[in-house]
Amino acid sequence: MNGAMSLLKTLTNNGVEVCFTNPGTSEMHMVAAIGQTGEMRSILSLFEGVCTGAADGYGRIAGKPACTLLHLGPGLSNGSANLHNARKANSPVINLIGDHATYHKKYDAPLNSDVIGLAKPVSHWVRSVADAVSLPSDAADAVVAANIKPGQIATLIVPADCAWDESVDPIGQRATPLAPLVNADSITKAAEMLGNGKPTVILMSNLALTEQSLRFADQVAQHSNARLFCDTFTSRLPRGEGRCSVERLAYFAEQATLQIAHAEQLITVGTKAPVGFFAYPGKVGEFYPEGCEIHALADVHEDAEAALQGLVAELGAQNQALRLNPLRYPGLSTGEISPESIARAFSEFLPTDAIVVDESATAGFLTYPLTETAEPHDWLSLTGGSIGYGLPTSIGAAVARPEAKVVCLHGDGGAMYTIQSLWTMAREQLDICIVIFANRKYQILQIELARVGAQSMNKKTLDMLDLSNPDLDFVGLANSMGVAGYKATTANEFNLMFERAMKEPGPRLIEAILDVDVSGLG
Amino acid sequence: MNGAMSLLKTLTNNGVEVCFTNPGTSEMHMVAAIGQTGEMRSILSLFEGVCTGAADGYGRIAGKPACTLLHLGPGLSNGSANLHNARKANSPVINLIGDHATYHKKYDAPLNSDVIGLAKPVSHWVRSVADAVSLPSDAADAVVAANIKPGQIATLIVPADCAWDESVDPIGQRATPLAPLVNADSITKAAEMLGNGKPTVILMSNLALTEQSLRFADQVAQHSNARLFCDTFTSRLPRGEGRCSVERLAYFAEQATLQIAHAEQLITVGTKAPVGFFAYPGKVGEFYPEGCEIHALADVHEDAEAALQGLVAELGAQNQALRLNPLRYPGLSTGEISPESIARAFSEFLPTDAIVVDESATAGFLTYPLTETAEPHDWLSLTGGSIGYGLPTSIGAAVARPEAKVVCLHGDGGAMYTIQSLWTMAREQLDICIVIFANRKYQILQIELARVGAQSMNKKTLDMLDLSNPDLDFVGLANSMGVAGYKATTANEFNLMFERAMKEPGPRLIEAILDVDVSGLG
Repeated sequence: MNGAMSLLKTLTNNGVEVCFTNPGTSEMHMVAAIGQTGEMRSILSLFEGVCTGAADGYGRIAGKPACTLLHLGPGLSNGSANLHNARKANSPVINLIGDHATYHKKYDAPLNSDVIGLAKPVSHWVRSVADAVSLPSDAADAVVAANIKPGQIATLIVPADCAWDESVDPIGQRATPLAPLVNADSITKAAEMLGNGKPTVILMSNLALTEQSLRFADQVAQHSNARLFCDTFTSRLPRGEGRCSVERLAYFAEQATLQIAHAEQLITVGTKAPVGFFAYPGKVGEFYPEGCEIHALADVHEDAEAALQGLVAELGAQNQALRLNPLRYPGLSTGEISPESIARAFSEFLPTDAIVVDESATAGFLTYPLTETAEPHDWLSLTGGSIGYGLPTSIGAAVARPEAKVVCLHGDGGAMYTIQSLWTMAREQLDICIVIFANRKYQILQIELARVGAQSMNKKTLDMLDLSNPDLDFVGLANSMGVAGYKATTANEFNLMFERAMKEPGPRLIEAILDVDVSGLG
Repeated sequence: MNGAMSLLKTLTNNGVEVCFTNPGTSEMHMVAAIGQTGEMRSILSLFEGVCTGAADGYGRIAGKPACTLLHLGPGLSNGSANLHNARKANSPVINLIGDHATYHKKYDAPLNSDVIGLAKPVSHWVRSVADAVSLPSDAADAVVAANIKPGQIATLIVPADCAWDESVDPIGQRATPLAPLVNADSITKAAEMLGNGKPTVILMSNLALTEQSLRFADQVAQHSNARLFCDTFTSRLPRGEGRCSVERLAYFAEQATLQIAHAEQLITVGTKAPVGFFAYPGKVGEFYPEGCEIHALADVHEDAEAALQGLVAELGAQNQALRLNPLRYPGLSTGEISPESIARAFSEFLPTDAIVVDESATAGFLTYPLTETAEPHDWLSLTGGSIGYGLPTSIGAAVARPEAKVVCLHGDGGAMYTIQSLWTMAREQLDICIVIFANRKYQILQIELARVGAQSMNKKTLDMLDLSNPDLDFVGLANSMGVAGYKATTANEFNLMFERAMKEPGPRLIEAILDVDVSGLG
């Protein structure tokens, strides 16, 4: 058996069963191997950023890695921004990056580049395969690396001859690594802080945001009068009816620092102390008050759920009744279409166990609070700040859980980065509804321009943040790639289109034409 | 004056007058500075790969750098594949990459990454600015680095505080570095080889492919009975009526090795000895015959034109009459649309001094030979092999030479990588005509699959190389981004559409629907 086939069988032996592909010549033996096995589903995309974003979404929902198959250094480069997001989400992802045959590298042919150098900044684990015989065990190591909790980016570089040369038997199933337990002192320390009467904030992310983790945290918070927060951008957050709530830290520093200004103590669980997304002239980078005592109950890789359970026990809060969200709809708007009317329809019609992929940026600011008491759902956010994650991540989420409706909320600017995603949605007939907030500008940047104190707000400057010349036609883009598209210009139109989209399967796109004026900002 | 403004003025003082932008918050002071100066033209794109590809095209035609303005590590990543192509083209490019404020890096905020690590594999020169005071001289150094002949990728990382802090005066004009002359021994050696009667091939690229270089080379070749070749993929090649011809080395190893199988001597000028684009099982990587003597007359950075001129003098070939291409049209086809009918119309109607940007891959194989005697034109190719360069590079070429018609020949698969380019073409009303060869597959990969000896050619395998489910509608895509689109399904339709496109200004797209069957390959 050649290296490619032994690689493939090693991956499927270890539970990797989906490959998001955009291959080239150097990956042809891996393509052929995928074609010959029945156990690996192959999903083609027209651009590598779609593959990596899809692997991110798959990892967040499936809790195990898919693989990508990308074409040498440039293929990795095109997928790199969404790997950055996946890395910040701590998603499990395996990248298979083809490379020139080991003996061909020295010629520095046109497609040659420093693949390891390109891989390191976006990976937790990188290895370049030495020969076909090593390939199966390298692949098994990659799966283990990707499965380090909550998840890691493992990048395996596969020179072409390692794929086509004769190899050895595939590796069987390896044990998936468990998240290590925090030590008992860490729990005792947290319990002491929660018992000393000082105002305390508990900030959570990653493994501290499972449905069960949130229940433990709710008992802790009630018992000790602490306030629960989660990071602004989280990999996955269970929300809606029957879930325990957690406040989300605001994006803008002015608001976030206010939210936790009262805290004398901060306990982090599965995350670190909160800092600004960007620096601004003359503003602080740390969101917590000066002198605030900080204790890390569990770091990102530790078993945060067990730590919170331990804390419940230590505090004796096991019998504390949970504050579970009721089901409550905000009601629909009529008249003008607006971020609020969309948020209301969204909350009203979101079906049970939907997955929300949010890259709505400024225009979606009301969708999050209004869904607090919607049907139970999972909320996925842009963890790494690199726009263009929403459409690809929706693909991966839909592949990981085909029975769920995926709703993708997207700003128009960000959606254009990986617009090729629509074609894969059509090809795979995925159950995804995309809502485009078409305000025809990079509105967040017009706000940021004012916030950073940049002086020029003249036409030439604002043109660099404007998308209205010419207007993009997202319905046309969707139709051109095989996805049904609809344009909503009133609240009623949107309400009807969205209600229908929630009831009918298959990919579709609704372009909500907004006219959000921020001209007063200057 | 703040750092951003002094940076901008330093760039414009040094002849940098176009910026291809896709900025974010960390670049807002640079955006404001561009907005305040009249000397820097700013061109917005919806994706960073468009910016970098455009800078490549601009550099190839203008012979001097434009700059890009990109958003931290992920913005650089999205532009990285086309920087790879630009690096292999030796194009002059300056990247301005925003980064977190120097004092904010330590927080490892969501958008933080190893920007230097991401930049190195795609740059010849990388520097991260230390403070606002250093910024102007760093910018001047970047311009000098980019202008090392034929051109280099210079990446300047600009932390946000270096842009907004008080800086010093901008740097005035620095001298542009000249290409060093080759030493006399190198010319003497080449002359000796050319005089010894052995069959000799001269392989040229980069600075050896100026119109004047080709004239010198033609005199050398006639005088010494040598054969002239150029690399398969060249940054820019002057062709057509009144130019001296040079044979292009074939892409496939089987053909390329045959082309130069007779050579006992190889003289390289502005390039290196030819090797395979990829390795294939059991095939050689080097294209030249075993035992062939190789002499590098001029390396990539040396003054190849002067070296060829010196060689003409050493051989006493100054009075050799030039073999200039005549103007000869191949005539139009009627009936079925095909690669040949398109190539004929293309050669017939290509206007004087057009710029051809070629990413036509398999379907365009006839356009190159049939334009040998077309109107004089420049031919730009995919130097780094990373598909998705054609549309962005066309933007840069059109900006650099607004009086020229730019014709972009593009495969359908490759065009989808940076399809967002269409919007910028519409926004700037650039005089670009795009021809999409819509064969609805990655045809080159179906060929390569057979060539690498991969065994499986079943449906699952071929699906990974297929673009027909669903069909892409390029006319719809163009219209959705403000570009006029036309679909051609017969030779006559294409002939009329293309003729008209050559006569009318402004961006337009012609989708040529091809039905190229390669099913016999398995």
